[in-house]
Amino acid sequence: MTKESIGVGLVGFGTIGTGVAKVLTGNADVIERRLGFPLRLVRIADLDTESERGVDLGGIRFDADTPGLLADPEVDIVVELVGGYDFARSLTLDAISQGKHVVTANKALLAVHGQEIFEASAGQGVGVAFEAAVGGGIPILRALREGLAANRIESVYGILNGTTNFVLTEMERTGEEFEVILKQAQDLGYAEADPTFDVEGVDAAHKLALLTSMSFGSSLDFKSIPTEGISGLVPLDFEMAREFGYRIKLLGIAKQGRRADGSPFIEARVHPTMIPRGSLLADVDGAMNAVAVRGDAVGPTLYYGAGAGELPTASAVVGDLMEIARGIRGGVSGRAAPLSYPVAELTEQKLIPLGELVGRCYLRFTAVDRPGVLAHITNALGQHGISIEAVSQRGRGHAGASVPVILLTHPAKESNVRAALDEIDGLSDVTAPSRMVRIEEEL
Amino acid sequence: MTKESIGVGLVGFGTIGTGVAKVLTGNADVIERRLGFPLRLVRIADLDTESERGVDLGGIRFDADTPGLLADPEVDIVVELVGGYDFARSLTLDAISQGKHVVTANKALLAVHGQEIFEASAGQGVGVAFEAAVGGGIPILRALREGLAANRIESVYGILNGTTNFVLTEMERTGEEFEVILKQAQDLGYAEADPTFDVEGVDAAHKLALLTSMSFGSSLDFKSIPTEGISGLVPLDFEMAREFGYRIKLLGIAKQGRRADGSPFIEARVHPTMIPRGSLLADVDGAMNAVAVRGDAVGPTLYYGAGAGELPTASAVVGDLMEIARGIRGGVSGRAAPLSYPVAELTEQKLIPLGELVGRCYLRFTAVDRPGVLAHITNALGQHGISIEAVSQRGRGHAGASVPVILLTHPAKESNVRAALDEIDGLSDVTAPSRMVRIEEEL
Repeated sequence: MTKESIGVGLVGFGTIGTGVAKVLTGNADVIERRLGFPLRLVRIADLDTESERGVDLGGIRFDADTPGLLADPEVDIVVELVGGYDFARSLTLDAISQGKHVVTANKALLAVHGQEIFEASAGQGVGVAFEAAVGGGIPILRALREGLAANRIESVYGILNGTTNFVLTEMERTGEEFEVILKQAQDLGYAEADPTFDVEGVDAAHKLALLTSMSFGSSLDFKSIPTEGISGLVPLDFEMAREFGYRIKLLGIAKQGRRADGSPFIEARVHPTMIPRGSLLADVDGAMNAVAVRGDAVGPTLYYGAGAGELPTASAVVGDLMEIARGIRGGVSGRAAPLSYPVAELTEQKLIPLGELVGRCYLRFTAVDRPGVLAHITNALGQHGISIEAVSQRGRGHAGASVPVILLTHPAKESNVRAALDEIDGLSDVTAPSRMVRIEEEL
Repeated sequence: MTKESIGVGLVGFGTIGTGVAKVLTGNADVIERRLGFPLRLVRIADLDTESERGVDLGGIRFDADTPGLLADPEVDIVVELVGGYDFARSLTLDAISQGKHVVTANKALLAVHGQEIFEASAGQGVGVAFEAAVGGGIPILRALREGLAANRIESVYGILNGTTNFVLTEMERTGEEFEVILKQAQDLGYAEADPTFDVEGVDAAHKLALLTSMSFGSSLDFKSIPTEGISGLVPLDFEMAREFGYRIKLLGIAKQGRRADGSPFIEARVHPTMIPRGSLLADVDGAMNAVAVRGDAVGPTLYYGAGAGELPTASAVVGDLMEIARGIRGGVSGRAAPLSYPVAELTEQKLIPLGELVGRCYLRFTAVDRPGVLAHITNALGQHGISIEAVSQRGRGHAGASVPVILLTHPAKESNVRAALDEIDGLSDVTAPSRMVRIEEEL
């Protein structure tokens, strides 16, 4: 006897969980019409059973009993929305071992424990879906996994974190310092009380780890992704970016390339990046996300939408639930491999060291305003083989004060730039650490 | 015994067919790695068996025998790339009746005969996939069908035809007349010798018919979509659009709304549209396509990429082949319903007449340059309840010459605008038919 409906159990009834309950109940008619059968939220578990969530829970069991939910035969699919690493991991593995399919929005969990989880789910023949983990409501993972599956993926450039994109947009618009805008973002609810994960690029790196694996069939390898956040940017950087025709975005970048000797490499990195004004990615403002994917057949593509928030995230979670529900009803557990390649096909692929990358750079130096300083800086660069495309020296104050010196380089090897910066930071006239922002022109 | 590989038969070996053969053979390794089994091009049928296509056909049978291909037990999936209506229809229905799955890029076929084809495929339990039919390589149909399946779709705005977008982009950039740019587009291969289907919006309307059905679960109803092309636009329209802060795009628009009395309606239409400069859709230039979809949970999303061309279209075709191949291997015929809703669930939903729509308009009049003319025009508009937001009168020549008069209206009911234009076109001072371009602000 086939069950009339497919049952969903929700673990974690916070913001996203509330959104999932709202979409499952509020859009039940359109969901059933699309599926041909109902998808029913049968049970919710959360330690906080008291707070009012503003959702009608008529007919839905709600208590703090997570093990009971996992064991409940009415629950076909478990939605993991507790966040974090350890409890989420054991909960997910428990659910899988009991033959439940799992939907999660937890990129931290997957970036760190994904390999273990996908191996367990492949072994049990159950689905693990996570569209909500990258780009919120944007169906970017489906695009990579299915829509672009015929392509060799060449590059992925993503604005993957709404908090940092909001801060960058507002810093540019207002000319205010990072700390001022961060405080505003916190007041508006766009940034957490402890914003480290977002502003230091960790959240973007979690997401990039998933995108890299799905693009290139490489093992999930979050820890080796070089990651730099946005807290070191100052208003002058935005002003100069505008002058040179760029905007600054925190990008997650993953590319596949070949060295001069023909050997393939992949690169993956998260850092503030200057990209040409007028490119589509440069126009993505506020808390929105976007991912530009280039495939060898399809060429450039771009996907844009809300990267976070109650309902956009729920849109992705419930889309995953519908896909798994169709699979259960059709007698298969899942069609495309969760990471696009079957987990057994994933190979360890060493990331190319940042030092080997070649690109143009924006450099900001802080130096005493004294004759000959610019010559010292440009000499040091020249000695490392770095040639200069443009120079701007500003804010000449009283004699002996520190002023910023801005340079744009021609394409240069990053290890050479680093060595030159180290040398320049040792000059007696240089009064604060130099800052580099990488430039990407391909967008 | 399960077959080792899944076999593909290609009918139609022109530009797209060649692209499909290139991707299937050139990317066979990555395709097999993602699927876990090989997808093999086993047979090609085309009347022209002589032309050199630049693909290595080693091991692939190639002749003019379409019936033989359809009957070949080695062929699990038929790719229909012959184009047009009648032969494509009978070929597709034949393939389905022989239990073959079908992948097609033929929007004309599906917009006109889709209902019959999807009913036949549902009856036979085989898949019909057509990602390449809308937006070329952009996986927009998958996004609607699966990624956004949990949403009530509120609106779809699409730049759906690369030829017209190229012409519009170049008319704006160069200030040249339509005919001049069209000729250039033909010389560059962006427009066909007979460009009617593209420039008069028919191709966009075919695609919009599919998007409308998939968004709202309405029956495929291409014929009732009001369609207006770009051939009536003149350089002044682009100049004025820029002055008022807009760009002109040929948009396919589908929306769901409610009348004042609460009754639901859907609207679908194709016409040149002024949209705000700086919106993402306004920045889509040249032959590229993009579709903006708004869902009730996800909010605004956008999908961008190459809307045509050998390899981008092949990317979508082969993605569909991979999805169907996974389904065959997994023992199911297809997961999500091709039109997002099962074909039996599609309901006839009458489109709202254009006359009932309310919006702002750009109006261009051509009138003798004589005192009182502007008063006649604005009086006629006022009598139909249309109020004016901005006026621009230009190009004052010698006395008695015709000059353009440009008006932007406040939101007005389209039937009132039409009635006023009819009246104004009857004025003795008005020397050429007036032109309206609708404005959409929501983007």
